[in-house]
Amino acid sequence: METLKIIKIGGKIINDTVALQQFIEDLSKLKGLKILVHGGGNLASETSKQLGIKIEKVDGRRLTDQKTLDVVTMVYAGKLNKTIVAALQAKGCNSLGLTGADGNLIQSYKRPVTSIDYGFVGDIIQVNTSLIEILLKEEIVPVFCALTHDKQGQLLNTNADTIASELAVALASSFSVELYYCFEKKGVLSDMTNDNSVIETLDLEAYHTLFQQGKIADGMLPKLDNCFNALNNKVFKVCIGNPKMIVDSNSIYTTLQL
Amino acid sequence: METLKIIKIGGKIINDTVALQQFIEDLSKLKGLKILVHGGGNLASETSKQLGIKIEKVDGRRLTDQKTLDVVTMVYAGKLNKTIVAALQAKGCNSLGLTGADGNLIQSYKRPVTSIDYGFVGDIIQVNTSLIEILLKEEIVPVFCALTHDKQGQLLNTNADTIASELAVALASSFSVELYYCFEKKGVLSDMTNDNSVIETLDLEAYHTLFQQGKIADGMLPKLDNCFNALNNKVFKVCIGNPKMIVDSNSIYTTLQL
Repeated sequence: METLKIIKIGGKIINDTVALQQFIEDLSKLKGLKILVHGGGNLASETSKQLGIKIEKVDGRRLTDQKTLDVVTMVYAGKLNKTIVAALQAKGCNSLGLTGADGNLIQSYKRPVTSIDYGFVGDIIQVNTSLIEILLKEEIVPVFCALTHDKQGQLLNTNADTIASELAVALASSFSVELYYCFEKKGVLSDMTNDNSVIETLDLEAYHTLFQQGKIADGMLPKLDNCFNALNNKVFKVCIGNPKMIVDSNSIYTTLQL
Repeated sequence: METLKIIKIGGKIINDTVALQQFIEDLSKLKGLKILVHGGGNLASETSKQLGIKIEKVDGRRLTDQKTLDVVTMVYAGKLNKTIVAALQAKGCNSLGLTGADGNLIQSYKRPVTSIDYGFVGDIIQVNTSLIEILLKEEIVPVFCALTHDKQGQLLNTNADTIASELAVALASSFSVELYYCFEKKGVLSDMTNDNSVIETLDLEAYHTLFQQGKIADGMLPKLDNCFNALNNKVFKVCIGNPKMIVDSNSIYTTLQL
Protein backbone atom coordinates (compact mmCIF):
# COMPACT_ATOMS: atom_id res chain seq x y z
CA MET A 1 0.00 0.00 0.00
CA GLU A 2 1.09 3.53 -0.70
CA THR A 3 2.34 5.55 2.27
CA LEU A 4 0.18 8.44 3.51
CA LYS A 5 1.59 10.82 6.10
CA ILE A 6 -0.92 12.56 8.36
CA ILE A 7 0.71 15.43 10.18
CA LYS A 8 -0.89 17.29 13.03
CA ILE A 9 0.55 20.59 14.18
CA GLY A 10 -0.37 22.13 17.47
CA GLY A 11 -1.30 25.60 18.48
CA LYS A 12 2.07 26.80 19.69
CA ILE A 13 3.66 26.28 16.26
CA ILE A 14 0.78 28.11 14.61
CA ASN A 15 1.22 31.07 16.95
CA ASP A 16 4.94 31.30 16.16
CA THR A 17 5.29 32.92 12.70
CA VAL A 18 8.90 31.80 12.20
CA ALA A 19 8.26 28.21 13.32
CA LEU A 20 5.11 28.03 11.15
CA GLN A 21 6.92 29.32 8.06
CA GLN A 22 9.72 26.76 8.60
CA PHE A 23 7.17 23.98 9.04
CA ILE A 24 5.35 25.01 5.85
CA GLU A 25 8.62 24.93 3.94
CA ASP A 26 9.45 21.49 5.35
CA LEU A 27 5.97 20.16 4.61
CA SER A 28 6.07 21.44 1.03
CA LYS A 29 9.33 19.52 0.46
CA LEU A 30 8.01 16.30 1.96
CA LYS A 31 7.48 13.78 -0.84
CA GLY A 32 4.44 11.55 -1.18
CA LEU A 33 0.84 11.71 -0.06
CA LYS A 34 0.09 13.85 2.96
CA ILE A 35 -2.68 15.43 5.01
CA LEU A 36 -2.27 18.31 7.45
CA VAL A 37 -4.42 18.79 10.54
CA HIS A 38 -3.95 21.96 12.54
CA GLY A 39 -5.01 23.10 15.98
CA GLY A 40 -6.14 26.56 16.86
CA GLY A 41 -3.65 27.96 19.29
CA ASN A 42 -4.41 31.01 21.33
CA LEU A 43 -5.66 33.21 18.49
CA ALA A 44 -9.23 32.10 19.26
CA SER A 45 -8.83 33.12 22.90
CA GLU A 46 -7.26 36.43 21.88
CA THR A 47 -10.07 37.12 19.42
CA SER A 48 -12.68 36.20 22.05
CA LYS A 49 -11.06 38.66 24.46
CA GLN A 50 -11.02 41.41 21.82
CA LEU A 51 -14.71 40.78 21.17
CA GLY A 52 -15.48 40.81 24.90
CA ILE A 53 -16.53 37.15 24.93
CA LYS A 54 -15.85 35.36 28.19
CA ILE A 55 -13.67 32.25 27.91
CA GLU A 56 -14.87 29.44 30.13
CA LYS A 57 -12.87 26.30 30.75
CA VAL A 58 -13.39 23.15 32.81
CA ASP A 59 -10.27 21.08 33.52
CA GLY A 60 -8.39 23.05 30.87
CA ARG A 61 -11.00 22.35 28.20
CA ARG A 62 -12.77 25.21 26.53
CA LEU A 63 -16.55 25.36 26.81
CA THR A 64 -17.99 26.26 23.42
CA ASP A 65 -21.10 28.39 23.63
CA GLN A 66 -22.63 29.94 20.47
CA LYS A 67 -20.44 33.04 20.55
CA THR A 68 -17.30 30.99 21.14
CA LEU A 69 -18.27 28.67 18.29
CA ASP A 70 -18.57 31.72 16.01
CA VAL A 71 -15.09 32.82 17.06
CA VAL A 72 -13.46 29.41 16.54
CA THR A 73 -15.21 29.08 13.16
CA MET A 74 -13.81 32.48 12.16
CA VAL A 75 -10.34 31.79 13.49
CA TYR A 76 -9.84 28.08 12.70
CA ALA A 77 -11.67 27.76 9.36
CA GLY A 78 -11.03 31.35 8.27
CA LYS A 79 -7.85 33.06 9.35
CA LEU A 80 -5.63 30.10 10.29
CA ASN A 81 -6.74 27.55 7.72
CA LYS A 82 -6.62 29.94 4.76
CA THR A 83 -3.33 31.52 5.82
CA ILE A 84 -1.76 28.05 5.93
CA VAL A 85 -3.25 27.09 2.55
CA ALA A 86 -2.05 30.32 0.90
CA ALA A 87 1.44 29.84 2.41
CA LEU A 88 1.62 26.25 1.13
CA GLN A 89 0.51 27.40 -2.35
CA ALA A 90 3.37 29.92 -2.32
CA LYS A 91 5.77 27.00 -1.82
CA GLY A 92 4.28 25.15 -4.77
CA CYS A 93 2.38 22.72 -2.54
CA ASN A 94 -1.19 22.47 -3.80
CA SER A 95 -3.44 22.31 -0.74
CA LEU A 96 -7.11 22.70 0.09
CA GLY A 97 -8.56 23.82 3.41
CA LEU A 98 -11.37 21.85 5.00
CA THR A 99 -13.67 21.48 7.95
CA GLY A 100 -15.54 18.25 8.55
CA ALA A 101 -18.66 19.92 7.09
CA ASP A 102 -16.99 20.37 3.69
CA GLY A 103 -17.85 17.42 1.48
CA ASN A 104 -19.46 15.92 4.62
CA LEU A 105 -15.98 14.57 5.36
CA ILE A 106 -16.21 14.26 9.14
CA GLN A 107 -19.54 13.81 10.85
CA SER A 108 -19.85 14.09 14.61
CA TYR A 109 -22.49 14.44 17.29
CA LYS A 110 -22.76 17.11 19.95
CA ARG A 111 -21.25 15.80 23.15
CA PRO A 112 -24.10 14.92 25.54
CA VAL A 113 -24.50 17.10 28.60
CA THR A 114 -23.50 15.30 31.81
CA SER A 115 -22.20 17.07 34.90
CA ILE A 116 -20.38 19.28 32.40
CA ASP A 117 -21.95 20.97 29.37
CA TYR A 118 -19.12 21.40 26.89
CA GLY A 119 -21.44 23.24 24.53
CA PHE A 120 -20.93 22.93 20.77
CA VAL A 121 -18.23 20.27 20.95
CA GLY A 122 -18.30 17.31 18.59
CA ASP A 123 -17.32 13.67 19.04
CA ILE A 124 -16.62 12.00 15.71
CA ILE A 125 -19.00 9.36 14.33
CA GLN A 126 -17.78 8.90 10.79
CA VAL A 127 -15.05 9.88 8.33
CA ASN A 128 -15.98 9.75 4.64
CA THR A 129 -12.78 8.92 2.85
CA SER A 130 -13.72 8.81 -0.85
CA LEU A 131 -13.36 12.55 -1.53
CA ILE A 132 -10.14 12.65 0.52
CA GLU A 133 -8.75 9.88 -1.67
CA ILE A 134 -9.76 11.82 -4.80
CA LEU A 135 -7.94 14.92 -3.54
CA LEU A 136 -4.82 12.89 -2.68
CA LYS A 137 -4.87 11.33 -6.16
CA GLU A 138 -4.92 14.86 -7.60
CA GLU A 139 -1.77 15.59 -5.56
CA ILE A 140 -3.67 18.01 -3.35
CA VAL A 141 -2.87 18.20 0.37
CA PRO A 142 -6.08 18.34 2.44
CA VAL A 143 -5.65 20.80 5.33
CA PHE A 144 -8.13 20.15 8.14
CA CYS A 145 -8.98 22.53 10.94
CA ALA A 146 -10.62 21.53 14.21
CA LEU A 147 -14.28 21.73 13.18
CA THR A 148 -16.77 19.05 12.23
CA HIS A 149 -20.55 19.03 11.79
CA ASP A 150 -23.56 16.95 12.77
CA LYS A 151 -25.11 16.94 9.26
CA GLN A 152 -28.07 18.76 10.76
CA GLY A 153 -26.59 22.18 10.16
CA GLN A 154 -24.55 22.45 13.34
CA LEU A 155 -20.81 23.06 13.23
CA LEU A 156 -18.98 21.52 16.18
CA ASN A 157 -15.62 22.34 17.77
CA THR A 158 -13.61 19.11 17.65
CA ASN A 159 -10.22 18.19 19.10
CA ALA A 160 -7.57 18.36 16.35
CA ASP A 161 -5.58 15.42 17.79
CA THR A 162 -8.71 13.29 17.58
CA ILE A 163 -9.43 14.45 14.01
CA ALA A 164 -5.91 13.39 13.02
CA SER A 165 -6.29 10.01 14.73
CA GLU A 166 -9.74 9.33 13.23
CA LEU A 167 -8.56 10.33 9.74
CA ALA A 168 -5.60 7.96 10.16
CA VAL A 169 -7.82 5.08 11.23
CA ALA A 170 -10.35 5.67 8.45
CA LEU A 171 -7.64 5.81 5.78
CA ALA A 172 -5.64 2.85 7.14
CA SER A 173 -7.57 0.39 4.98
CA SER A 174 -6.45 2.19 1.79
CA PHE A 175 -2.97 3.42 2.74
CA SER A 176 0.00 2.60 4.91
CA VAL A 177 -0.67 5.53 7.25
CA GLU A 178 2.00 7.28 9.29
CA LEU A 179 0.67 9.68 11.90
CA TYR A 180 2.91 12.47 13.21
CA TYR A 181 1.88 14.61 16.17
CA CYS A 182 4.11 17.69 16.03
CA PHE A 183 4.43 20.08 18.92
CA GLU A 184 7.02 22.29 20.58
CA LYS A 185 8.74 19.49 22.56
CA LYS A 186 10.99 16.81 21.08
CA GLY A 187 8.70 13.96 22.14
CA VAL A 188 7.26 12.27 25.21
CA LEU A 189 9.58 13.04 28.13
CA SER A 190 10.48 10.67 30.97
CA ASP A 191 11.22 13.77 33.06
CA MET A 192 8.86 16.68 32.38
CA THR A 193 11.50 19.15 33.61
CA ASN A 194 14.13 17.89 31.16
CA ASP A 195 13.47 18.57 27.46
CA ASN A 196 16.19 16.10 26.49
CA SER A 197 14.67 13.12 28.32
CA VAL A 198 12.85 11.98 25.17
CA ILE A 199 11.52 8.42 25.29
CA GLU A 200 12.39 7.19 21.82
CA THR A 201 10.11 4.16 21.90
CA LEU A 202 7.04 4.10 24.10
CA ASP A 203 4.82 1.06 24.30
CA LEU A 204 1.47 0.68 25.97
CA GLU A 205 2.93 -1.02 29.06
CA ALA A 206 5.58 1.66 29.59
CA TYR A 207 2.89 4.31 29.08
CA HIS A 208 0.77 2.78 31.84
CA THR A 209 3.77 2.62 34.15
CA LEU A 210 4.66 6.28 33.50
CA PHE A 211 1.04 7.23 33.97
CA GLN A 212 0.87 5.47 37.33
CA GLN A 213 4.08 7.23 38.35
CA GLY A 214 2.45 10.57 37.51
CA LYS A 215 5.12 11.27 34.90
CA ILE A 216 2.76 12.03 32.00
CA ALA A 217 1.54 15.63 31.84
CA ASP A 218 -2.20 16.27 31.65
CA GLY A 219 -2.25 17.50 28.05
CA MET A 220 -0.29 14.45 26.92
CA LEU A 221 -2.87 11.93 28.12
CA PRO A 222 -5.55 12.46 25.45
CA LYS A 223 -2.81 12.77 22.81
CA LEU A 224 -1.38 9.37 23.80
CA ASP A 225 -4.87 7.87 23.88
CA ASN A 226 -5.30 9.09 20.28
CA CYS A 227 -1.93 7.56 19.38
CA PHE A 228 -2.74 4.12 20.79
CA ASN A 229 -6.23 4.27 19.30
CA ALA A 230 -4.59 4.69 15.88
CA LEU A 231 -2.10 1.84 16.46
CA ASN A 232 -4.94 -0.39 17.63
CA ASN A 233 -6.72 0.30 14.34
CA LYS A 234 -4.14 -0.58 11.71
CA VAL A 235 -2.27 2.72 11.52
CA PHE A 236 1.27 1.70 10.57
CA LYS A 237 3.35 4.22 12.50
CA VAL A 238 2.62 6.89 15.13
CA CYS A 239 5.17 9.46 16.31
CA ILE A 240 5.21 12.46 18.65
CA GLY A 241 7.86 15.15 18.42
CA ASN A 242 9.12 18.40 17.03
CA PRO A 243 7.97 19.23 13.45
CA LYS A 244 11.54 18.68 12.26
CA MET A 245 10.95 14.92 12.57
CA ILE A 246 8.92 14.89 9.34
CA VAL A 247 11.99 15.79 7.25
CA ASP A 248 14.98 14.91 9.43
CA SER A 249 15.31 11.15 9.93
CA ASN A 250 18.18 11.74 12.38
CA SER A 251 16.14 13.86 14.75
CA ILE A 252 15.07 12.40 18.07
CA TYR A 253 11.37 11.85 18.68
CA THR A 254 8.99 9.37 20.25
CA THR A 255 7.67 6.40 18.29
CA LEU A 256 4.66 4.70 19.83
CA GLN A 257 4.23 0.93 19.89
CA LEU A 258 1.58 -1.41 21.16
CA MET B 1 -23.06 20.34 -23.22
CA GLU B 2 -24.36 19.77 -19.73
CA THR B 3 -25.93 22.76 -17.98
CA LEU B 4 -24.06 24.30 -15.02
CA LYS B 5 -25.81 26.92 -12.91
CA ILE B 6 -23.60 29.43 -11.14
CA ILE B 7 -25.54 31.29 -8.49
CA LYS B 8 -24.28 34.36 -6.71
CA ILE B 9 -26.02 35.57 -3.57
CA GLY B 10 -25.42 39.00 -2.18
CA GLY B 11 -24.81 40.26 1.28
CA LYS B 12 -28.33 41.29 2.17
CA ILE B 13 -29.65 37.74 1.74
CA ILE B 14 -26.81 36.38 3.88
CA ASN B 15 -27.61 38.85 6.65
CA ASP B 16 -31.28 37.81 6.67
CA THR B 17 -31.52 34.44 8.48
CA VAL B 18 -34.99 33.64 7.13
CA ALA B 19 -34.15 34.58 3.53
CA LEU B 20 -30.88 32.65 3.71
CA GLN B 21 -32.58 29.52 5.04
CA GLN B 22 -35.21 29.72 2.27
CA PHE B 23 -32.50 30.18 -0.34
CA ILE B 24 -30.55 27.18 0.99
CA GLU B 25 -33.67 25.04 0.82
CA ASP B 26 -34.35 26.20 -2.75
CA LEU B 27 -30.75 25.64 -3.81
CA SER B 28 -30.68 22.15 -2.32
CA LYS B 29 -33.75 21.25 -4.40
CA LEU B 30 -32.31 22.65 -7.63
CA LYS B 31 -31.44 19.75 -9.92
CA GLY B 32 -28.22 19.48 -11.91
CA LEU B 33 -24.72 20.87 -11.58
CA LYS B 34 -24.34 24.07 -9.60
CA ILE B 35 -21.82 26.38 -7.96
CA LEU B 36 -22.59 28.94 -5.27
CA VAL B 37 -20.70 32.20 -4.83
CA HIS B 38 -21.52 34.33 -1.81
CA GLY B 39 -20.78 37.90 -0.82
CA GLY B 40 -19.94 39.05 2.65
CA GLY B 41 -22.70 41.36 3.72
CA ASN B 42 -22.29 43.62 6.70
CA LEU B 43 -21.00 40.98 9.14
CA ALA B 44 -17.41 41.94 8.24
CA SER B 45 -18.15 45.59 9.00
CA GLU B 46 -19.88 44.65 12.25
CA THR B 47 -16.96 42.44 13.29
CA SER B 48 -14.49 45.21 12.40
CA LYS B 49 -16.43 47.62 14.57
CA GLN B 50 -16.50 45.14 17.47
CA LEU B 51 -12.72 44.73 17.15
CA GLY B 52 -12.22 48.51 17.01
CA ILE B 53 -10.92 48.41 13.43
CA LYS B 54 -11.71 51.51 11.41
CA ILE B 55 -13.63 50.90 8.17
CA GLU B 56 -12.39 53.03 5.31
CA LYS B 57 -14.20 53.32 2.01
CA VAL B 58 -13.60 55.23 -1.22
CA ASP B 59 -16.61 55.58 -3.53
CA GLY B 60 -18.42 52.91 -1.52
CA ARG B 61 -15.59 50.40 -1.89
CA ARG B 62 -13.92 49.05 1.19
CA LEU B 63 -10.18 49.61 1.56
CA THR B 64 -8.58 46.38 2.76
CA ASP B 65 -5.65 46.92 5.09
CA GLN B 66 -4.03 43.98 6.92
CA LYS B 67 -6.43 44.08 9.86
CA THR B 68 -9.45 44.34 7.56
CA LEU B 69 -8.12 41.43 5.49
CA ASP B 70 -7.89 39.36 8.68
CA VAL B 71 -11.51 40.22 9.47
CA VAL B 72 -12.84 39.40 6.00
CA THR B 73 -10.86 36.14 6.01
CA MET B 74 -12.42 35.22 9.34
CA VAL B 75 -15.93 36.27 8.34
CA TYR B 76 -16.10 35.25 4.66
CA ALA B 77 -14.04 32.03 4.67
CA GLY B 78 -14.84 31.10 8.27
CA LYS B 79 -18.21 32.04 9.69
CA LEU B 80 -20.27 32.67 6.54
CA ASN B 81 -18.81 30.03 4.23
CA LYS B 82 -18.91 27.20 6.78
CA THR B 83 -22.36 28.13 8.06
CA ILE B 84 -23.69 27.93 4.49
CA VAL B 85 -21.91 24.62 3.84
CA ALA B 86 -23.22 23.07 7.08
CA ALA B 87 -26.76 24.30 6.28
CA LEU B 88 -26.60 22.81 2.77
CA GLN B 89 -25.34 19.49 4.19
CA ALA B 90 -28.36 19.46 6.52
CA LYS B 91 -30.59 19.63 3.42
CA GLY B 92 -28.77 16.69 1.84
CA CYS B 93 -26.87 18.91 -0.58
CA ASN B 94 -23.21 17.89 -0.51
CA SER B 95 -21.17 21.09 -0.70
CA LEU B 96 -17.60 22.20 -0.11
CA GLY B 97 -16.45 25.68 0.90
CA LEU B 98 -13.62 27.34 -0.99
CA THR B 99 -11.50 30.42 -1.37
CA GLY B 100 -9.44 30.97 -4.51
CA ALA B 101 -6.36 29.84 -2.54
CA ASP B 102 -7.84 26.37 -2.01
CA GLY B 103 -6.63 24.05 -4.74
CA ASN B 104 -5.13 27.20 -6.33
CA LEU B 105 -8.54 27.61 -7.95
CA ILE B 106 -8.54 31.37 -8.47
CA GLN B 107 -5.31 33.30 -8.78
CA SER B 108 -5.26 37.08 -8.71
CA TYR B 109 -2.83 39.95 -8.36
CA LYS B 110 -2.94 42.76 -5.84
CA ARG B 111 -4.56 45.79 -7.43
CA PRO B 112 -1.83 48.32 -8.25
CA VAL B 113 -1.80 51.51 -6.22
CA THR B 114 -2.88 54.51 -8.28
CA SER B 115 -4.51 57.59 -6.81
CA ILE B 116 -6.32 55.10 -4.56
CA ASP B 117 -4.66 52.30 -2.59
CA TYR B 118 -7.34 49.65 -2.22
CA GLY B 119 -4.99 47.57 -0.09
CA PHE B 120 -5.24 43.77 -0.20
CA VAL B 121 -7.74 43.61 -3.04
CA GLY B 122 -7.31 41.10 -5.86
CA ASP B 123 -8.05 41.28 -9.56
CA ILE B 124 -8.41 37.84 -11.09
CA ILE B 125 -5.76 36.47 -13.47
CA GLN B 126 -6.71 32.84 -13.79
CA VAL B 127 -9.33 30.24 -12.86
CA ASN B 128 -8.15 26.63 -12.71
CA THR B 129 -11.16 24.57 -13.65
CA SER B 130 -9.98 20.95 -13.46
CA LEU B 131 -10.57 20.46 -9.73
CA ILE B 132 -13.90 22.30 -9.95
CA GLU B 133 -14.95 19.84 -12.68
CA ILE B 134 -13.88 16.91 -10.49
CA LEU B 135 -15.99 18.21 -7.59
CA LEU B 136 -19.00 18.73 -9.87
CA LYS B 137 -18.60 15.19 -11.22
CA GLU B 138 -18.71 13.95 -7.60
CA GLU B 139 -22.04 15.80 -7.20
CA ILE B 140 -20.46 18.28 -4.81
CA VAL B 141 -21.52 21.93 -4.90
CA PRO B 142 -18.47 24.22 -4.67
CA VAL B 143 -19.26 27.21 -2.43
CA PHE B 144 -16.94 30.14 -3.08
CA CYS B 145 -16.45 33.12 -0.81
CA ALA B 146 -14.96 36.44 -1.91
CA LEU B 147 -11.27 35.68 -1.40
CA THR B 148 -8.53 34.76 -3.85
CA HIS B 149 -4.72 34.60 -3.58
CA ASP B 150 -1.64 35.68 -5.53
CA LYS B 151 0.13 32.29 -5.20
CA GLN B 152 2.84 34.08 -3.28
CA GLY B 153 1.17 33.58 0.08
CA GLN B 154 -1.10 36.61 0.01
CA LEU B 155 -4.86 36.28 0.37
CA LEU B 156 -6.77 39.00 -1.47
CA ASN B 157 -10.27 40.37 -0.97
CA THR B 158 -12.06 39.94 -4.31
CA ASN B 159 -15.45 41.10 -5.54
CA ALA B 160 -17.91 38.19 -5.38
CA ASP B 161 -19.78 39.32 -8.53
CA THR B 162 -16.50 39.21 -10.44
CA ILE B 163 -15.64 35.77 -9.02
CA ALA B 164 -19.01 34.48 -10.25
CA SER B 165 -18.50 36.02 -13.70
CA GLU B 166 -14.91 34.73 -14.06
CA LEU B 167 -15.92 31.23 -12.93
CA ALA B 168 -18.74 31.31 -15.50
CA VAL B 169 -16.39 32.38 -18.30
CA ALA B 170 -13.71 29.81 -17.37
CA LEU B 171 -16.25 26.97 -17.26
CA ALA B 172 -18.11 28.02 -20.42
CA SER B 173 -15.87 25.87 -22.60
CA SER B 174 -16.92 22.71 -20.69
CA PHE B 175 -20.52 23.47 -19.76
CA SER B 176 -23.58 25.38 -20.91
CA VAL B 177 -23.27 27.92 -18.10
CA GLU B 178 -26.18 29.86 -16.64
CA LEU B 179 -25.21 32.69 -14.32
CA TYR B 180 -27.72 33.99 -11.76
CA TYR B 181 -27.05 37.13 -9.74
CA CYS B 182 -29.47 36.99 -6.82
CA PHE B 183 -30.18 39.99 -4.63
CA GLU B 184 -33.02 41.56 -2.69
CA LYS B 185 -34.68 43.26 -5.72
CA LYS B 186 -36.62 41.48 -8.45
CA GLY B 187 -34.19 42.55 -11.18
CA VAL B 188 -32.87 45.63 -12.96
CA LEU B 189 -35.43 48.41 -12.53
CA SER B 190 -36.35 51.05 -15.11
CA ASP B 191 -37.43 53.23 -12.19
CA MET B 192 -35.27 52.89 -9.09
CA THR B 193 -38.16 54.06 -6.90
CA ASN B 194 -40.52 51.36 -8.16
CA ASP B 195 -39.64 47.76 -7.25
CA ASN B 196 -42.11 46.47 -9.82
CA SER B 197 -40.53 48.23 -12.80
CA VAL B 198 -38.40 45.17 -13.63
CA ILE B 199 -36.83 45.19 -17.09
CA GLU B 200 -37.37 41.59 -18.18
CA THR B 201 -34.87 41.66 -21.03
CA LEU B 202 -31.98 44.08 -21.01
CA ASP B 203 -29.57 44.27 -23.92
CA LEU B 204 -26.32 46.19 -24.18
CA GLU B 205 -27.85 49.05 -26.14
CA ALA B 206 -30.72 49.53 -23.68
CA TYR B 207 -28.21 49.36 -20.82
CA HIS B 208 -26.17 52.19 -22.37
CA THR B 209 -29.30 54.26 -22.85
CA LEU B 210 -30.42 53.73 -19.23
CA PHE B 211 -26.91 54.53 -18.05
CA GLN B 212 -26.84 57.81 -20.00
CA GLN B 213 -30.24 58.68 -18.53
CA GLY B 214 -28.79 58.14 -15.04
CA LYS B 215 -31.32 55.37 -14.38
CA ILE B 216 -28.83 52.69 -13.29
CA ALA B 217 -27.84 52.83 -9.63
CA ASP B 218 -24.16 52.94 -8.70
CA GLY B 219 -23.95 49.42 -7.27
CA MET B 220 -25.62 47.98 -10.38
CA LEU B 221 -22.94 49.23 -12.80
CA PRO B 222 -20.12 46.79 -11.93
CA LYS B 223 -22.70 43.97 -11.66
CA LEU B 224 -23.94 44.67 -15.19
CA ASP B 225 -20.37 44.92 -16.45
CA ASN B 226 -19.79 41.43 -15.01
CA CYS B 227 -22.97 40.20 -16.70
CA PHE B 228 -22.02 41.49 -20.15
CA ASN B 229 -18.45 40.26 -19.68
CA ALA B 230 -19.88 36.77 -19.17
CA LEU B 231 -22.19 37.01 -22.21
CA ASN B 232 -19.27 38.25 -24.31
CA ASN B 233 -17.34 35.14 -23.32
CA LYS B 234 -19.68 32.29 -24.21
CA VAL B 235 -21.76 32.14 -21.04
CA PHE B 236 -25.14 30.89 -22.22
CA LYS B 237 -27.52 32.79 -19.96
CA VAL B 238 -27.17 35.62 -17.43
CA CYS B 239 -29.96 36.75 -15.10
CA ILE B 240 -30.38 39.24 -12.27
CA GLY B 241 -33.17 38.97 -9.74
CA ASN B 242 -34.57 37.68 -6.51
CA PRO B 243 -33.25 34.24 -5.39
CA LYS B 244 -36.69 32.76 -6.12
CA MET B 245 -35.86 32.92 -9.84
CA ILE B 246 -33.63 29.84 -9.53
CA VAL B 247 -36.60 27.60 -8.70
CA ASP B 248 -39.67 29.50 -9.92
CA SER B 249 -39.76 29.76 -13.70
CA ASN B 250 -42.82 32.04 -13.46
CA SER B 251 -41.10 34.65 -11.36
CA ILE B 252 -40.15 37.96 -12.93
CA TYR B 253 -36.47 38.79 -13.27
CA THR B 254 -34.04 40.42 -15.69
CA THR B 255 -32.39 38.39 -18.44
CA LEU B 256 -29.37 40.05 -20.02
CA GLN B 257 -28.67 39.91 -23.75
CA LEU B 258 -25.94 41.26 -25.98
